[in-house]
Amino acid sequence: MTAKLHWRADLMAGAVVAVLLIPQSLAYAMLAGLPPQVGLYASLLPLLAYAALGSSPVLGLGPVAVLALMIAQALAGLPAGVSAEQGALVLAAEVGAFLALAALLRLDALASLLSVPALRGFENGATLMIAAGQLPVLLGSTAAGFTLPDLLRSALHGGMRPLSAAWGAAAVGLLLLSRRLGSRTLARLAPLLLLVGAMALSALTPAAQGVAQVGALPSLAVPVGLPPLDAALWLHLLPAAALVGLMGFVSSLAVSESLAQRRGEKLLPAAELRGLAAANLVASVTGGMPVAGSFSRSILLHEAGSASRWSLVFVAGFMALAMLLLAGPLAHLPKPVLAATIVVAVLGGFTPGHYRDAWRYARAEGVLMAAVTAAVLLWSIGAALALGVVGSIALLIQRTARPHVARIGRVPGTQHYRNVERYAVECQPEVVGLRIDESLVFTNARGLSDEVLARVREHRERVGPPQRVLLLMAPVNHIDVSGLTALQELRSALAAEGLRLEFSEVKGPVLDRLRAIGWLEQHDVSLYLSHHEGISAGEQVLRPSLADHDAPGQL
Amino acid sequence: MTAKLHWRADLMAGAVVAVLLIPQSLAYAMLAGLPPQVGLYASLLPLLAYAALGSSPVLGLGPVAVLALMIAQALAGLPAGVSAEQGALVLAAEVGAFLALAALLRLDALASLLSVPALRGFENGATLMIAAGQLPVLLGSTAAGFTLPDLLRSALHGGMRPLSAAWGAAAVGLLLLSRRLGSRTLARLAPLLLLVGAMALSALTPAAQGVAQVGALPSLAVPVGLPPLDAALWLHLLPAAALVGLMGFVSSLAVSESLAQRRGEKLLPAAELRGLAAANLVASVTGGMPVAGSFSRSILLHEAGSASRWSLVFVAGFMALAMLLLAGPLAHLPKPVLAATIVVAVLGGFTPGHYRDAWRYARAEGVLMAAVTAAVLLWSIGAALALGVVGSIALLIQRTARPHVARIGRVPGTQHYRNVERYAVECQPEVVGLRIDESLVFTNARGLSDEVLARVREHRERVGPPQRVLLLMAPVNHIDVSGLTALQELRSALAAEGLRLEFSEVKGPVLDRLRAIGWLEQHDVSLYLSHHEGISAGEQVLRPSLADHDAPGQL
Repeated sequence: MTAKLHWRADLMAGAVVAVLLIPQSLAYAMLAGLPPQVGLYASLLPLLAYAALGSSPVLGLGPVAVLALMIAQALAGLPAGVSAEQGALVLAAEVGAFLALAALLRLDALASLLSVPALRGFENGATLMIAAGQLPVLLGSTAAGFTLPDLLRSALHGGMRPLSAAWGAAAVGLLLLSRRLGSRTLARLAPLLLLVGAMALSALTPAAQGVAQVGALPSLAVPVGLPPLDAALWLHLLPAAALVGLMGFVSSLAVSESLAQRRGEKLLPAAELRGLAAANLVASVTGGMPVAGSFSRSILLHEAGSASRWSLVFVAGFMALAMLLLAGPLAHLPKPVLAATIVVAVLGGFTPGHYRDAWRYARAEGVLMAAVTAAVLLWSIGAALALGVVGSIALLIQRTARPHVARIGRVPGTQHYRNVERYAVECQPEVVGLRIDESLVFTNARGLSDEVLARVREHRERVGPPQRVLLLMAPVNHIDVSGLTALQELRSALAAEGLRLEFSEVKGPVLDRLRAIGWLEQHDVSLYLSHHEGISAGEQVLRPSLADHDAPGQL
Repeated sequence: MTAKLHWRADLMAGAVVAVLLIPQSLAYAMLAGLPPQVGLYASLLPLLAYAALGSSPVLGLGPVAVLALMIAQALAGLPAGVSAEQGALVLAAEVGAFLALAALLRLDALASLLSVPALRGFENGATLMIAAGQLPVLLGSTAAGFTLPDLLRSALHGGMRPLSAAWGAAAVGLLLLSRRLGSRTLARLAPLLLLVGAMALSALTPAAQGVAQVGALPSLAVPVGLPPLDAALWLHLLPAAALVGLMGFVSSLAVSESLAQRRGEKLLPAAELRGLAAANLVASVTGGMPVAGSFSRSILLHEAGSASRWSLVFVAGFMALAMLLLAGPLAHLPKPVLAATIVVAVLGGFTPGHYRDAWRYARAEGVLMAAVTAAVLLWSIGAALALGVVGSIALLIQRTARPHVARIGRVPGTQHYRNVERYAVECQPEVVGLRIDESLVFTNARGLSDEVLARVREHRERVGPPQRVLLLMAPVNHIDVSGLTALQELRSALAAEGLRLEFSEVKGPVLDRLRAIGWLEQHDVSLYLSHHEGISAGEQVLRPSLADHDAPGQL
């Protein structure tokens, strides 16, 4: 561990975050369908593993709400004879192995597969689904389900227990009150105070009789040992592990990168992968569950002044202390209170404004975001993530599918060329100036000739009969084999009409490739440094074979 | 039918193409595992349907070698009790329905999914596989299989019949000889002459005893009727039909578009979809098999002077005549001769140079092309097409995954700005000039801030401490929601270092979107018409709210 210790800052930040992590670890274990101690175990040694190998000084590692929901769904279909705890260990081991493999293969670019609309749509959906799923616990109903329709169907049969509902409503009320009235410190302390208060009240009064309680825990000693080595079980959980791993990595990276920029620090995605992999592998041999970076705890670590990853070591220390103190009283904790802390915590993360913002800027992306949210609520986590990835790629392809070719002319008195549709510009009859507003790749290559020929016809009708077609290539960032084939066909089509094809302002990387195969000479396409030169001076042709990278003033 | 008839030209072209289509229709039916008359039926009425609804005057519609291979694979797994002919009818109906649906939904952009490397790799692979599959027929072996390993395994058991091999070798020799020695006319007539000669020889001499022959055909009357309406069968063939439909459309469009450009005509992809859909639906109710445009016959139609789609009507007329004349003699046609015509025809289309060309220009695309070919030979048609589509999309994403951000400076004495790494240019200390060489989309949005901040550090070290960062946005063709989020984060990160973010040369369509949500005002980002103005005159800031689309000289 290379991080430099800042005693006071890191110790303080560690204490503040532990206060939030104690209730969250218990609650998220319950959310994942696991006994509460699993959440505590997952908040202990995995933090040390991340502190040793990770890179962010403010990543609030541990159990996370969205992952807990995914874990619950993964563990719902376990084969007979396998306990949820065993399943969680295997899942953590696989998530760790998956992230380690990604680190080894330098696949940190995988994070790019989830676009912002897909990620936000998913997180909003998961948030709603978590809250919806905790409502029955809060109200003392037996209803359960992983989709809204399932939940509603089962709610028709499961009644409500007024006493449980009273505990739950009181807890929600107190938590909301602490946010409204109190200081920041009070709001942060509230969940822990509520837990301790509820445990005391429940243990001392008969008011908790009939309300579901956490129940007696085994002695809280971290159970060290390998997860069950059952090949069929591992295979069964593999797809879910891949999703949990991807989601854990992407959501951790999103918060740690954003905080790193705010703090003026440099984040290493590869180190994040290593740290997360190690934390999950450690969780799998110390009785835990899959872990990742929590948004709320990361912000808190940053605001509380964490200066190095040592703060996570202090968090782990406080968690160990809490385990010793809480072992007995936890048995009396009413479940509706725990559910209340979950509902209040996650609903704060639900951001309906995201849909409006995306819709206003780009309708299709707003629709995708809403569709991903709906898929979480109505279908499944896996389907929602797949929809997000495939939908984002489809939109990307669709956006590049039609090459935008603008006819351009000279802004009078300057050397600038702009779209004739948007500006009052000058055009010369003998040269058709066109700007290709897209990389030439397979998704749009087929349409290139049609677009260019249509613009040439336009020029002939409105300006006069041309002799040359000069393509301004500055916006063309890539030309793939399909694009190159299309350019060849364009050149033939223009030659059939007696027109010469010429390029201006071809970018360095694109030009390098064309030169490597002698394309410009082979197809006799002239090249100009600037569009203005190409338009105004036919005789100043820069032969590509003469141009030189090192000399200025040439392409 | 709106096409104008050109009697002489269309009649001549029709005759020339019919001469090629007669042997091809018989051979491709055999290749598809169907009786020869199916090929003849597919070359009759479907041509009239395309002539009525299609758009190209030179599309050589009918049975096609690559589709025949796909049909053979699709029909290999038919349920018991269903004949290959029945399967072919259902397949043709589904291909027709699929294309009609695509026409209705205006999905002609689907053709873009197959990149040039994927298409060429697939066609080369199919060509090799067709030739390999016909070799046993040519040699009188019983070996068969849809992949090279299957074929080799079965070839170990199936012997060779010397007499069959002699017929096959003689036929191949004569066909190759006709190409080498004879005139173009002779080369085109050769397959039909060979067929007629072989039928005569086989009927009149005992030399054909023991050689597999086509055998007696039913009376050649087009069997009109619906394909079997068996839901399970339709469902079974659906995936194969989607692939056959996609491949038929893409390969037809490739040849008809390329010829349309050569002929200075305009092709309507939507009309092509309609024409192909109608042709396949007609094939499905007239005893045929799935049809598409053949590369060789389309070129021939063009070269023979076809002036309208009436030429296809004449082709159909000649095919009807041939059916009447051939019905009897066809029974004696030795199969090795038919196999010889297939092998010689398809191997002419194998182009090994494609791999070298793609590899030299872009290694990854060359590898993809070879992988698709290998998948056809070793795996399956479906896997090869899927690999082609997914591989092309993966390469596209990978290519845009890292935003290229170039530090640019002024070419001395001009208003042009070029990469400082490639040119001797001038930079001012107070402004970092950067060119963003990529659309800002989700695949690269995460890396933007890192790249820009790295270039800013470089500038600080080599040129001096800056106050502003001016991004030249001309190559940015799109900004999606993820890209916009990245720009917001970049602005905050720069502000944290006391730097102002500014844009120059933002494109019209991109600017429209930013303006629609008031992004520039909200984030206080200034805008310049040209990068030169932005660099040289900080006071000439064009406030976006002042800029106007209609006035020249402003963005």
